[in-house]
Amino acid sequence: MQDPISIAAEKIRKLEVQGARNVAITAITATETLANQTKARNKKEFLKELMKAKETLFASRETEPLMRNAIRLIINQLEKGTEKNVGRLAETVSTASGQFLKDLENSKERIADIGARRIKNHFTILTHCHSSTVTCLLKKARKDGKVFEVICSETRPVFQGRTTAKEMLELGVKTTFIVDSAMRFFMNHVDLVIVGADAITSEGNVINKIGTSMVALAAQEARIPFYVVSELLKFDPATMYGDYEKIEERDPAEIWKEPPTNLIIRNPAFDVTRRDFIHGIICEEGIISPHSITEVMHRKYPWVFE
Amino acid sequence: MQDPISIAAEKIRKLEVQGARNVAITAITATETLANQTKARNKKEFLKELMKAKETLFASRETEPLMRNAIRLIINQLEKGTEKNVGRLAETVSTASGQFLKDLENSKERIADIGARRIKNHFTILTHCHSSTVTCLLKKARKDGKVFEVICSETRPVFQGRTTAKEMLELGVKTTFIVDSAMRFFMNHVDLVIVGADAITSEGNVINKIGTSMVALAAQEARIPFYVVSELLKFDPATMYGDYEKIEERDPAEIWKEPPTNLIIRNPAFDVTRRDFIHGIICEEGIISPHSITEVMHRKYPWVFE
Amino acid sequence: MQDPISIAAEKIRKLEVQGARNVAITAITATETLANQTKARNKKEFLKELMKAKETLFASRETEPLMRNAIRLIINQLEKGTEKNVGRLAETVSTASGQFLKDLENSKERIADIGARRIKNHFTILTHCHSSTVTCLLKKARKDGKVFEVICSETRPVFQGRTTAKEMLELGVKTTFIVDSAMRFFMNHVDLVIVGADAITSEGNVINKIGTSMVALAAQEARIPFYVVSELLKFDPATMYGDYEKIEERDPAEIWKEPPTNLIIRNPAFDVTRRDFIHGIICEEGIISPHSITEVMHRKYPWVFE
Amino acid sequence: MQDPISIAAEKIRKLEVQGARNVAITAITATETLANQTKARNKKEFLKELMKAKETLFASRETEPLMRNAIRLIINQLEKGTEKNVGRLAETVSTASGQFLKDLENSKERIADIGARRIKNHFTILTHCHSSTVTCLLKKARKDGKVFEVICSETRPVFQGRTTAKEMLELGVKTTFIVDSAMRFFMNHVDLVIVGADAITSEGNVINKIGTSMVALAAQEARIPFYVVSELLKFDPATMYGDYEKIEERDPAEIWKEPPTNLIIRNPAFDVTRRDFIHGIICEEGIISPHSITEVMHRKYPWVFE
Amino acid sequence: MQDPISIAAEKIRKLEVQGARNVAITAITATETLANQTKARNKKEFLKELMKAKETLFASRETEPLMRNAIRLIINQLEKGTEKNVGRLAETVSTASGQFLKDLENSKERIADIGARRIKNHFTILTHCHSSTVTCLLKKARKDGKVFEVICSETRPVFQGRTTAKEMLELGVKTTFIVDSAMRFFMNHVDLVIVGADAITSEGNVINKIGTSMVALAAQEARIPFYVVSELLKFDPATMYGDYEKIEERDPAEIWKEPPTNLIIRNPAFDVTRRDFIHGIICEEGIISPHSITEVMHRKYPWVFE
Amino acid sequence: MQDPISIAAEKIRKLEVQGARNVAITAITATETLANQTKARNKKEFLKELMKAKETLFASRETEPLMRNAIRLIINQLEKGTEKNVGRLAETVSTASGQFLKDLENSKERIADIGARRIKNHFTILTHCHSSTVTCLLKKARKDGKVFEVICSETRPVFQGRTTAKEMLELGVKTTFIVDSAMRFFMNHVDLVIVGADAITSEGNVINKIGTSMVALAAQEARIPFYVVSELLKFDPATMYGDYEKIEERDPAEIWKEPPTNLIIRNPAFDVTRRDFIHGIICEEGIISPHSITEVMHRKYPWVFE
Repeated sequence: MQDPISIAAEKIRKLEVQGARNVAITAITATETLANQTKARNKKEFLKELMKAKETLFASRETEPLMRNAIRLIINQLEKGTEKNVGRLAETVSTASGQFLKDLENSKERIADIGARRIKNHFTILTHCHSSTVTCLLKKARKDGKVFEVICSETRPVFQGRTTAKEMLELGVKTTFIVDSAMRFFMNHVDLVIVGADAITSEGNVINKIGTSMVALAAQEARIPFYVVSELLKFDPATMYGDYEKIEERDPAEIWKEPPTNLIIRNPAFDVTRRDFIHGIICEEGIISPHSITEVMHRKYPWVFE
Repeated sequence: MQDPISIAAEKIRKLEVQGARNVAITAITATETLANQTKARNKKEFLKELMKAKETLFASRETEPLMRNAIRLIINQLEKGTEKNVGRLAETVSTASGQFLKDLENSKERIADIGARRIKNHFTILTHCHSSTVTCLLKKARKDGKVFEVICSETRPVFQGRTTAKEMLELGVKTTFIVDSAMRFFMNHVDLVIVGADAITSEGNVINKIGTSMVALAAQEARIPFYVVSELLKFDPATMYGDYEKIEERDPAEIWKEPPTNLIIRNPAFDVTRRDFIHGIICEEGIISPHSITEVMHRKYPWVFE
Repeated sequence: MQDPISIAAEKIRKLEVQGARNVAITAITATETLANQTKARNKKEFLKELMKAKETLFASRETEPLMRNAIRLIINQLEKGTEKNVGRLAETVSTASGQFLKDLENSKERIADIGARRIKNHFTILTHCHSSTVTCLLKKARKDGKVFEVICSETRPVFQGRTTAKEMLELGVKTTFIVDSAMRFFMNHVDLVIVGADAITSEGNVINKIGTSMVALAAQEARIPFYVVSELLKFDPATMYGDYEKIEERDPAEIWKEPPTNLIIRNPAFDVTRRDFIHGIICEEGIISPHSITEVMHRKYPWVFE
Repeated sequence: MQDPISIAAEKIRKLEVQGARNVAITAITATETLANQTKARNKKEFLKELMKAKETLFASRETEPLMRNAIRLIINQLEKGTEKNVGRLAETVSTASGQFLKDLENSKERIADIGARRIKNHFTILTHCHSSTVTCLLKKARKDGKVFEVICSETRPVFQGRTTAKEMLELGVKTTFIVDSAMRFFMNHVDLVIVGADAITSEGNVINKIGTSMVALAAQEARIPFYVVSELLKFDPATMYGDYEKIEERDPAEIWKEPPTNLIIRNPAFDVTRRDFIHGIICEEGIISPHSITEVMHRKYPWVFE
Repeated sequence: MQDPISIAAEKIRKLEVQGARNVAITAITATETLANQTKARNKKEFLKELMKAKETLFASRETEPLMRNAIRLIINQLEKGTEKNVGRLAETVSTASGQFLKDLENSKERIADIGARRIKNHFTILTHCHSSTVTCLLKKARKDGKVFEVICSETRPVFQGRTTAKEMLELGVKTTFIVDSAMRFFMNHVDLVIVGADAITSEGNVINKIGTSMVALAAQEARIPFYVVSELLKFDPATMYGDYEKIEERDPAEIWKEPPTNLIIRNPAFDVTRRDFIHGIICEEGIISPHSITEVMHRKYPWVFE
Repeated sequence: MQDPISIAAEKIRKLEVQGARNVAITAITATETLANQTKARNKKEFLKELMKAKETLFASRETEPLMRNAIRLIINQLEKGTEKNVGRLAETVSTASGQFLKDLENSKERIADIGARRIKNHFTILTHCHSSTVTCLLKKARKDGKVFEVICSETRPVFQGRTTAKEMLELGVKTTFIVDSAMRFFMNHVDLVIVGADAITSEGNVINKIGTSMVALAAQEARIPFYVVSELLKFDPATMYGDYEKIEERDPAEIWKEPPTNLIIRNPAFDVTRRDFIHGIICEEGIISPHSITEVMHRKYPWVFE
């Protein structure tokens, strides 16, 4: 029987699980299962087991700061505590995991509450790709009685924009659907751009779905506010110490099923949007300037730097 | 039996013929056929017939300056001449049509010759959509022994980038294929951007495939030269007199075959790239600054203003 | 009894006549009167008289290219002609003057025709100061059935924006009135900026009412098209040869009637908008890029360089 | 007899009191009076009274962060303390109020000290509107023996620039007075722009008198340093949580006393200057980058977030 | 005995002659000598001799448009003429050569006259490298009684800025001398930047001494006018047809006499300043926008395109 | 016999010691010597002696924040402690000094570790001047097996670029050497710009060798990442309180040994690079946005503000 960590890591590696949030949930759940099934005889053995799990999960995909920060947090709590009983340590993992998932959910709602206030009646909002936090925010705005329109880019190669469009129509929002390269064409009719995030670097840059940096550029050119919604724990402490956020490249077949021989297909999944294009990051703390991200993290989640 | 003009206009209207060059060829050929079949008894009747043809063809699609300039040129030559014999007038149409098509071909080759010199060994060239003039230019460069790479964007919604990619591979050129919104991602590895044109306005702006203005913006941000290749007769004199270049919107099904109910799909086929993003227009006259386009036209093709 | 030229020059000097167009009309009318009253006995004397008139009129205000070009044109026609009879020469002055005024009027109408096509239904148009050509253009658009809104800046210190606002209300146009420094505040709701011109330099820059360059800057920042409407004869050939367009400074009392002692009040009437901020100059020739202005003048009015 | 809070709120509502500082002083003084006159029998009643006062004062004008932070601070001190005696609680209000006003005064002097060092001999300083902190800073620089010039914009519609000009002349400073739209005209002769602030948002943007953002734009275009002087307590914590800083619109009659029928007059009192235009905020802490404002507040005045 | 053309070509090749103007003079003089010594028996032989001379001279250095245009002009006059007598053809060469040199001198003076008017009293003018046309212009301004300062960059690697500095001091002009990389440091104290040109491309770009494009960038950043002085015949028609202006690389020893082994020293002599950085080209025709350069050439020197 | 502080101060004043790091080492060593030789009879006398030393050292050169922060730290530790025995206080100075030097060395290595990770294989890195931290970083990258190229500017007037070039060649790195004004010419072939720092201001601006801000400008224009490597203690707290970082002007003879009479030679040693040009500061804490520098200092080295 395969252990829960290997199964989870495998799913993550094979892209069966996608989106920073889902990856984190999968990894946490596996860690909790591991803890509950542990046969470790003492804290040392238990921690060793968890460190191995951490290693396996970290290796499963290039950069997933949310998942990594979650694992870091759980192990950190064990290490810091004085508890030595393995059973109770396993409970700690359970509690910490549950707390993390609950906090994550709370953060999303908090972000939706804050972000929804940025939407004024009759706004046209452009978004790229699909982000559950963005759609949660838009739902909240709708619930608050705001009337607005949404423009969705289709988001090649895997058309996540279609998911966004469907969710918007279900909300009863007037929705316009365009190809990615038409985003500049419609920009002067937009009041606000909102996108999600996969990772935030120590310089304050945001990694998100390929094309995000082009929208940001077009928004800046037309003086249109560009906001990122993100839980703070998408901050990647490794970037602090010089690592580049790795940009995952996906299967070329996503772009062209049966391409001609010798064609090189490049399919980077993300790009980097520099902090100066971003009006604010809407996070659980409120709306902040991306330039101050490391200090926010030091104040709020100092353990990510440990 | 339907007349040749109606048939041609219908084909153009239904988008069976596409690309500025093909539209022009179809219209000219139909005009030539009309002239050869004419039953007009005198110059007046003949001209009336041609004026009606002009009207029908002009109405077939919103803006097709190359086609319009071709028809303008042919009729202009009849009006100016002193010939009154209908048979010989029909011959004039034939000659003028043939000359126009030949000039068009010569222009393309001239542009290829000139543009090919802009390509240095080991350059990486990015292009968007498919333009027969761009690929002609790249073929010429290849024939001149230049070694270079090409990056093609797929060009949603109808993937003309695939045609470009295939042609490049046939040439033996190392070719990379990407989604449209990844163009900024790769921009810092590019030495030159070259695109085609559908129309040029009196202000010096260029209308081309949707997404062109986003590439131009990303190229400017990274200080990468951005060139447009175009026959001068894509200049649209109507813009001189205040008309906006109409941006054709195509069938939403090109973007999403079975979209959810109520979804608005916008499918503009072109966008406008402002003159300040364009390093030069490579035309049959050589490489010019787009800011001087009207004066170039006044010197070279003054009859387009008549 | 004072001669007509001195009277006109005096009126111009004392700012009793204002606006490039009115100054030109005053000067031309005076020149015509002078010619009709002449006591010159031969062409030489007549030309001498006119050259003196030219000198007096040119000295009446720092830069008035339209007026200067008008006088240049009239004298140029006399010099070029072979006519020697003083009576008939005076008639030539009369005819040329009349022709100039008629051409000026035609140019204005032509500009209005062309510019009106740039206005789409439901546009919001921002304008600064009062320009009879701008309001003529807006009237034309209205007459063509276009529905649009106008935002007028008040245009301190002499509130010419109030005149514009009144004219717009008379047209039945929805009109919003703001202070000059609020123009950036409203810019993102604007579709088009249109202003007049007092002079155009050989570099393609436009001299217009103080504040115009600030609107242009704010329009550029927000990617809003900025157009200048102007007769080509506002081109100032002296700038070709190195002269700066002189910026007239007006009475400080316009700004503050009873200022505190020692306060320096600076009241420049105009500022310079660089060609790169201007999408197009809408002139009697059509819409042109300001960068090509000298070549347009060489083609159309070569005599201004003589 | 009306209670002091209602009177103060009324004055603020009717714009009888103006300027962030004066509004704060009025509200604090009223709160102090309320506390001194209280008939509350216990802490609970006393706090209830104060909470009602807070509500009334907060409702008196859309956004007045300085006033709001002052009231927050006073109530916060009561709530945190263990004191239960109403008399002594009233004294606490008195002390806290007095302390706040003294701190405010100290901050102003501290800002003046710091800012004055930024002025070098023979500088030309441009300022917009009237800010007592700016003039305090300039007085300090003068007292330090610096020789400099000042350019004041008149600041339509209510000419606060005239107050600034008079104060400068009284200081013996060479002062130039211009219309608002001439600020770009003179920008290349300016060494430093200094303006005040009404509010600072969590993104680091500054709300100040209408026109401030246009000066900032013109300063940036000409690479001229642009500084904001402001007490940190003008930071508005509500912006952290998504609220927009409300832009007050004032009486149209300020702009045009007897406007034509149907004219819409828009009179926004403030505009927003984005953080990227601001070289530094000169505050009681020293000169800071606006991008770090929330972290500065968390370190220095954490209670504003409570 | 070596022929005059080979001697001249050799001098040019070995950089014994430098500066676009001196190279042109050397080539013309050699051509004149060749013509005077000719032993050709008929026009055909004579032209053949000249064509060979042209080839040799053109091959002597990569791009020297002024020299090339001079030779083109001379041969063009022979070809067009009907004269067949070799003696009289030689005289034509002599006359054309003399005329060219005289025109060149006149152009310089004309440029100086025009440019000098751009200098106002108390201006600070920054220049880079040494250009005889720039110093001629400054001499003219001085002669006109203008009082101004000059900042000279030293212009590594061969310190041509020292020549400029000496010439300025001889004129009695207050002169400041700085290292090249300090140009941005002083830019905000500059009123005008003026530089020379080695070549002008069909796009309107200017090739000049290495570093020119960095000054242009720094000037643009600070909104300081940047002018190029140049005879129109520095226009290079080959760029029209796709050729890049070749950037000559000089002897590494100019930069470091005894460099360490393996060090690659790159010593490009020129760089390219894009048209959008250039406020105007001050040429014999007046001040023009670089964007219209090809049309100016077509009007004024159409033979360069032949 | 001269005291160690005067000797050190003299060396610093005469520029015998150069570079922020060397100046700090010299000052610390002298302070340690002073402490070891002290004849003070009690803490009060000892502190007085040190305060005098501080004054002398601070006066030795305009701004040397690293040195000043070092001295501040040492005295701060004495003042804070309760130790009263002079001998043990002297030991404290010794320990603190040693610790500071060790920390400095550790910081450099830490910076090298972090920065080296930013270098990818086949990168071309441009650097200006010589910085021991930059070369330490490049050595680390080399040691990590990275293959990269370096472009060094010569850095007039004293050619520190030659030192950099030699060190790179010794490392076996392919090295290209250019004049300072050629940096823009090569910028499009650069992947990363890295420079050192002499001081960091509270606004987040960096003071470094003259020319640094020009490279930064050229890098920004071409979208090339620009990083500064610096120990955090180069932060200058005086800038917080309004002082400008003084820009030292060096001996004119560095620029021109025997200049002509009356020539003004300006030789500023440093310039200011605004925070917005800097992608990140690589410091001992990791890579941070310069905009948050004061908060980083408050968290990490709060004593610099005392």
